This record gives sequence, structure tokens and C-alpha cells, in this order.
Amino acid sequence: MSVVLGRNGGEGGRLYGVGLGPGDPELVTVKAVRLIEAAPVIAYFAKRGRSSNARQIAARWIKDGVTELPLLYPVTTEIPFAEPGYAQTLRPFYDEAARAIASHLEHGQDVALLCEGDPLFYGSFMHIHTRLKDRHPVGICAGITGMSGCWAAAQAPMSWGDDVLTVLPGTLGREDLVRRLAATDAAVVMKLGHNLPKVRGALADAGLADRAIYVERGTMAEEVILPLAAKTDDEAPYFALILVPGEGRRP
Amino acid sequence: MSVVLGRNGGEGGRLYGVGLGPGDPELVTVKAVRLIEAAPVIAYFAKRGRSSNARQIAARWIKDGVTELPLLYPVTTEIPFAEPGYAQTLRPFYDEAARAIASHLEHGQDVALLCEGDPLFYGSFMHIHTRLKDRHPVGICAGITGMSGCWAAAQAPMSWGDDVLTVLPGTLGREDLVRRLAATDAAVVMKLGHNLPKVRGALADAGLADRAIYVERGTMAEEVILPLAAKTDDEAPYFALILVPGEGRRP
Repeated sequence: MSVVLGRNGGEGGRLYGVGLGPGDPELVTVKAVRLIEAAPVIAYFAKRGRSSNARQIAARWIKDGVTELPLLYPVTTEIPFAEPGYAQTLRPFYDEAARAIASHLEHGQDVALLCEGDPLFYGSFMHIHTRLKDRHPVGICAGITGMSGCWAAAQAPMSWGDDVLTVLPGTLGREDLVRRLAATDAAVVMKLGHNLPKVRGALADAGLADRAIYVERGTMAEEVILPLAAKTDDEAPYFALILVPGEGRRP
Repeated sequence: MSVVLGRNGGEGGRLYGVGLGPGDPELVTVKAVRLIEAAPVIAYFAKRGRSSNARQIAARWIKDGVTELPLLYPVTTEIPFAEPGYAQTLRPFYDEAARAIASHLEHGQDVALLCEGDPLFYGSFMHIHTRLKDRHPVGICAGITGMSGCWAAAQAPMSWGDDVLTVLPGTLGREDLVRRLAATDAAVVMKLGHNLPKVRGALADAGLADRAIYVERGTMAEEVILPLAAKTDDEAPYFALILVPGEGRRP
């Protein structure tokens, strides 16, 4: 029995949110491969002038002759989320991207929208999903999250027994980070970038500096994994993250 | 650059923790398929007298003639974790399972230990990993977590923008659950079973009852997905979970 939660109206093609996992193309699922090989239209996000990470992960399964629909972000540098310019710039972009996808769906073509990581976990796909789910059928193919890829690459068992695991964006304020870090058993701090010095300070205040592991591009060729205490600079890409493994029950 | 974190000594065969994802065999990764097809020894946990869920997910890729190593839990019903009997029963079991695996590694045979979900996220694999990682080479193949499979099946976008996501075992006390639920933006409550009435009460106290989604066997043929408010009984398997999707920033 599966009670429908009131989504997915409409006729025509189906939109698939296809999770591709953390970066290693071998961590793509059998289902994602099938969906990519079957879809007549492959869509993906990219920054203008850059190659799409998602397309790169999926490249070996994208067939010649398929229609590709790149969705090019209007900004190449980060706008702080708190600034009004963020929503003002991105809202029309997602509206237009949804329209471009919908025009294929209306012609009866399925569209596979490639998603790094998992489509429904901090994913841009969700902004398309929320715009189209009531007008078109949708399918979601889960993917391995970036954080799972990172703790596998670090060989760091994350959560044991009754551990509470908290996922925190590094964008939060320092006091908020300290309070939440001190109250959890295991933590993942995402969206590092220029937030790294603040996050490092919060981990120290919460007494967790020695347990923290820094991971950059986990599962990819250029991955960097080291104890945070051994990282001497404050440079970090936006998608780098910090793991604080739990220490719960171990029979 | 990848700084080794001091793990993985020894010679001989390699132990692979192979994540199989949430249950749908199509959600197994290309890498997991390769590891399963290549390993001369396939190990998996099972309850005595029951078939192994992990083996069932991987069945189509297990070759004839491979050595199978079932690791049979000594208990068929749950022992509450707080009871001393829990560690006293499970510690010698994990010791013995690790020895059985090690005897193959010592003979130079790789062993693929099949893991439901992700090996390092509340996984039994971690109890083997911690016993063998300093004596034998180890490889970890991340898998889609059960919770990712559940939110994909429910088509529930979980975490947006700066949302904090908290993963809570339903085994926690009611007051603890209420406090943590009230302080987070998005939540997953795992390990429901007989904890369901307590968790339901905690969600109500935290003002989240209307946002909660109940998911049982997500991505499997027998999946059950419904708003928690529409679930009229208090029966739940141990591996059922509750999702409270975030409501963060949506440009």
C-alpha cells in the first residue's frame, strides 16, 4: 500500500530527478544508468563558462544524439544567501529552467535532470521539482549523498547505536554552530568555503577540534582527506565538508 | 593528496564493506556490482532462520560457486540496547564474525561484506571494521542510506538552503526527542518499532505532527508511505522511519 501524498498530476513526459552520487562515476546506481540511457532529453545545471560536474559524472552513459539541456546559472560567484539579490537573481532562473524542461515534457518527452549527490538533499533539483510536480509526473532516483561519499573515503564510521547525527550548514552563525555541535553525538558541517575559519573556531569551542576530519572532493581523483588539526591553511572549496564521527555504543 | 588517517595495515586479502542501498536492487551502485562479482567470498549478516535482506538485494550479482559466509545473529528478538545482555551477547558474536572473515583474508582472499544502506551509517559493518581495520586492508563502497531511499520514495524534498537536518534514533527518551525536534529544521526519526507511540507524542509536543511522513520499507515492493496523521495504528517495523521535511529557503 502506498498512499499518494498529493503530488504528480498531468500528462505527457515524466521528469526524473536522477541522483549521481558524490563524484566517482562508479558510485552511480544501476537505476540511474538505466534512466540516463533511456531518456531522450538530459538536463543538467552548470555555471556559465564551466563544464557541468553532473554531466561529467554521467558522461559515459549519455548516448550520442540525445538532446542535452544545459541550465546555466546566471551567477558565477556566490551571492550570500541573506542578500535580497540571491532570490531576485535565482528565482527567475529557476522559473525559466522549469519552463525549458516543461516544454519537453509537454511534447511527451521524458527528461532526466542529472543531480550531483542525492536529488532531495540540499539539491537544486528541488527548485525544479516544486515548480513542476503538480503539473507533470515525476520520478525520483535517490543518489549517494556527498557526505556518505566523504565518510566512506575517509573510512570514518559516522554514527553508532543511538548516536544523534546533525547536518549543519557552515553558513550558520558561530554561536549557533557551537550550541548545536555541543549538543550532538556526530556532525557533518557542509558548505565550508569562506566559512572555514568560523567553523574551525566553533568546533574548538565545542571541544570537537581533535575529532574533526576535513574532506574535499571525496571519492574523486583530487580528493583531500586529513584531520582538521593538520590543515594549516583556511582555504576550502564551498563543497568541502567536515566530519565529526560519533563515538556511540560498540559491542 | 590524501593523507592516510592511520588505518589499514597488514597483508593478504582486502575486506570490502559494500553498501547496497535501501532495498531496491536497482539502487545498487555500479561499483558495488563490480565488487560483488569479483569477490571470491561474499559475507552477510542474517537473523538465524531468516533469509538475509542484504543477500536478497544483491542476489542477481552473486555468482555460482562463490564462497558464501553467512554471519548469523545469536538473537532473533531485539534486546534493548540499555540492557547489559546486549553487549554481552553481541560482543562475542562480532568477535567470532570478524575471526571468520579474517581467516579468508589471511588466505589472501578478498571478502565483500554486504551491507544494507550505507556501511558507515548505523551499520553492523562498523563492528567488523573496527576489529579488522588495523590488521587487514579495507575498502569502503558507500551506499544510498535507507533515509535517502525513503525520502525519494515519498518525493519529499528534505533539506533546503541553510536547513539543519537532525537524525534521531527513536530509542531516545521522549523529552530528549521533543527538545531536539523543536530545535531543528528537518528531521529523520529512525528505529521506530515499539517506539512509535512515544515518537508520535514527541512530534506533537514539538508542533511537527502535521509535517511528519511515515515510511516503511521505502523503495521496496511492499513500501508504505503516508502522512503520520493518517496512520491510525501504532504498529511499525524497527526499520520504519519518520521524515519531517525542512521548509527552508526556496528562491
